[in-house]
Amino acid sequence: MDEKQFRYQHLAEEIGTKIRNGTYQPGEKLPSIRQLHRRLQLSISTVYQAFVELETVGLIEARPRSGYYVRPVSLKSFRPPVHATGKPAKPRKVELDGMVNSVLTAMHTPGILSMASSATAPALLPFRRFTRILKTLSAAEMEKRIGYGVPQGDAELRRQIARRTLGVMPDASAEAIIITNGCSEAVSLCLQAVLSPGDILAIEAPTHFGFLQLFRELGITVVEIPTHPRDGVDADALEEILKQTPVQCCLFMPNFQNPLGALMSDERKERLVRLLNRREIPVIEDDICGEMFFEGNRRPALLKQFDRKDLVMTCSSFSKTLAPGFRIGWAIPGKRFREKVLRLKAGTTVCTAMLDQYVMARFLADGSAERHLRSLRQKIRQQMTKTALAVEQYFPPGTRLAVPRGGSLLWVQLPRGADGATLYRQALERKIAILPGVVCSVSGQFRDY
Amino acid sequence: MDEKQFRYQHLAEEIGTKIRNGTYQPGEKLPSIRQLHRRLQLSISTVYQAFVELETVGLIEARPRSGYYVRPVSLKSFRPPVHATGKPAKPRKVELDGMVNSVLTAMHTPGILSMASSATAPALLPFRRFTRILKTLSAAEMEKRIGYGVPQGDAELRRQIARRTLGVMPDASAEAIIITNGCSEAVSLCLQAVLSPGDILAIEAPTHFGFLQLFRELGITVVEIPTHPRDGVDADALEEILKQTPVQCCLFMPNFQNPLGALMSDERKERLVRLLNRREIPVIEDDICGEMFFEGNRRPALLKQFDRKDLVMTCSSFSKTLAPGFRIGWAIPGKRFREKVLRLKAGTTVCTAMLDQYVMARFLADGSAERHLRSLRQKIRQQMTKTALAVEQYFPPGTRLAVPRGGSLLWVQLPRGADGATLYRQALERKIAILPGVVCSVSGQFRDY
Repeated sequence: MDEKQFRYQHLAEEIGTKIRNGTYQPGEKLPSIRQLHRRLQLSISTVYQAFVELETVGLIEARPRSGYYVRPVSLKSFRPPVHATGKPAKPRKVELDGMVNSVLTAMHTPGILSMASSATAPALLPFRRFTRILKTLSAAEMEKRIGYGVPQGDAELRRQIARRTLGVMPDASAEAIIITNGCSEAVSLCLQAVLSPGDILAIEAPTHFGFLQLFRELGITVVEIPTHPRDGVDADALEEILKQTPVQCCLFMPNFQNPLGALMSDERKERLVRLLNRREIPVIEDDICGEMFFEGNRRPALLKQFDRKDLVMTCSSFSKTLAPGFRIGWAIPGKRFREKVLRLKAGTTVCTAMLDQYVMARFLADGSAERHLRSLRQKIRQQMTKTALAVEQYFPPGTRLAVPRGGSLLWVQLPRGADGATLYRQALERKIAILPGVVCSVSGQFRDY
Repeated sequence: MDEKQFRYQHLAEEIGTKIRNGTYQPGEKLPSIRQLHRRLQLSISTVYQAFVELETVGLIEARPRSGYYVRPVSLKSFRPPVHATGKPAKPRKVELDGMVNSVLTAMHTPGILSMASSATAPALLPFRRFTRILKTLSAAEMEKRIGYGVPQGDAELRRQIARRTLGVMPDASAEAIIITNGCSEAVSLCLQAVLSPGDILAIEAPTHFGFLQLFRELGITVVEIPTHPRDGVDADALEEILKQTPVQCCLFMPNFQNPLGALMSDERKERLVRLLNRREIPVIEDDICGEMFFEGNRRPALLKQFDRKDLVMTCSSFSKTLAPGFRIGWAIPGKRFREKVLRLKAGTTVCTAMLDQYVMARFLADGSAERHLRSLRQKIRQQMTKTALAVEQYFPPGTRLAVPRGGSLLWVQLPRGADGATLYRQALERKIAILPGVVCSVSGQFRDY
């Protein structure tokens, strides 16, 4: 290897590393060839050769009359996973095997790097701001928060949440909102409000593995609807299943689905809701990741926007974006189910923790939430990009990857013949917890994810 | 009326008022006749006549060689309510009428004096101490609390709660405890852990009307067990019912039962647990008022102490004694049901609010809890005495009253022919919410309470 060859490869490697570690962001412009020539004391042709090398491996792209840019990471740059289409699903009770307990234990074991859940790292959350709010809390304010609250939650917090529905939920008001102990309680109350014993719930396949736990504990019978890694739940498949199966309720995540990261388009959302409205089937939408979009500056639409029959129940929380430990979520169940959800809330947890509601309302009122969210989205997107690039670099050929447009989970399809459970066990030996695809379904699918 | 007669009556009236408003406490010694003779410039015989008058109406009592004492308010000084013993109860689904919604609305309406629930007034709770703890919270500590916690709850808080079980639960350790969103969530998780659809739950009659709400929302079938205003649930009646009815679980409040205030003796507790152990029937005990005893200085025993088969699930919280708004309760379900309860907790509310757990653990660790509890018990007891005396003074003859030995509820039986619902409506017109007895049962009993 002559010296010149060594030099351009060395430069290409360094730039590549800096792209992978997020120094250079997807879509960002790189220094020009002329700038690098001067700054690094390298010949124009050495720098040019390095850029060509990076272009070849797909890390950067030349834009005419503009220069070289870090290539935006998108579904285009990876081959997306392919879900096998099997026989139409049959309703079944949820039974989970030992793998699930192992994953749950691993997630909570100190010293293990948990990549098995979509938890946001505390360092990325506005804990300093919350600390400052607590320091200003007077004894008189504490006296107001120490007693029981009403089941629907703090009025000011509900108003702040209602303000944030601008543009995605025209009819929402503070009155429509019920504060819950996280999004999980919201979903669980809505499920219990709609389902009677023996009823069938339609869910996405794959789905959030925490939901499967819940379904098992509540004894809910489910039917799985095929769900596309990019486009979300398949309305055609759902329609077919509805012809044979008496589904009483659906639970979907239209925005940045867990675990796929799929984002349904507005057209798909509208079509889905029209189908369910026509059959008078209630649908619970979990929008917990709705605020974690990577593209543009507005959050994606809700199923609720297309609802003509008051059958969509929207659930969300601040657990991915502000403070998981505060356990503040909410349900907007619509007039039809509001009373029932509220009575369930009053009967099971009485009200949501008052101090946390107060601190969150103060945080939202002071206007720093938007700034925090913009910065959080950028950081999560950087992490996502880094991780996706690392998977591309280190995983064997044949690996497929759906890089999502939001959320915080990467759905990876292993090369043919590889087993997610084996990879899970091997990773765990190295103190890393991942989520084997098989635990995201009740039917043994997704073994190679 | 001659002047002398006027004088002794005037004195009797003044002392009576001071007893009713708590200036002189039940059991407290009054100034001696000689002292009052000197201090008030009244003749010995005038003071003596006043004391005789007060003795006659039952407010004070003479103790040989000691003097006059405010009569301890106890079941002895009131005629206790009499529960009609009807036909053996049949299992039934819980249906609640409009009265319940009215009570719930009234409880939460600003401007209405709520005497319908056992909520402790915020002014009696240690809100200043909690405010001080929050002011010392560092950003680094907040960073630790802002993320998700484990479903079973903060380890230090569990340890603090375990320390407090000394003397009432020999086997309890931090490991055995699951932190919940108040006692309600603890009870609700235990119920769901044990009951399948269609199963029958045995409950006390009357019972906490919030429980009935929960049973309705969860679709639980219940059978009511007669419960004595002083001695608690009737084990004989339960035994009879068990002969005919397949009961899968019981939910009882052995200590200061809501709404009766009944305290079961150790003997009755032991007998009850022996009966249920023998038949392998799990029992959930709600001990939320266990710390609110008025007599002696140790909390009453738990059913758990008599449990030989790991079938008693103990639930409690700090909502009556420290901070209802923090929503911190716990379940100690025993080894048999621990995993199931924990999975339900993880599936429905994931974990209990982290900040609240931390603040509560700090409060318990600094040792001021005992002092607060002693003072709280005394204040609640004073309120209870005042209210009982007011009922005696202002309610019509024939009123019966169980003055409890703990807790914060008074169970009043109206004279024959009076209707609790009518009284409820009349009180509500005057902006006072009371609890009509009929909402504490599913069988239309207790209309005159």
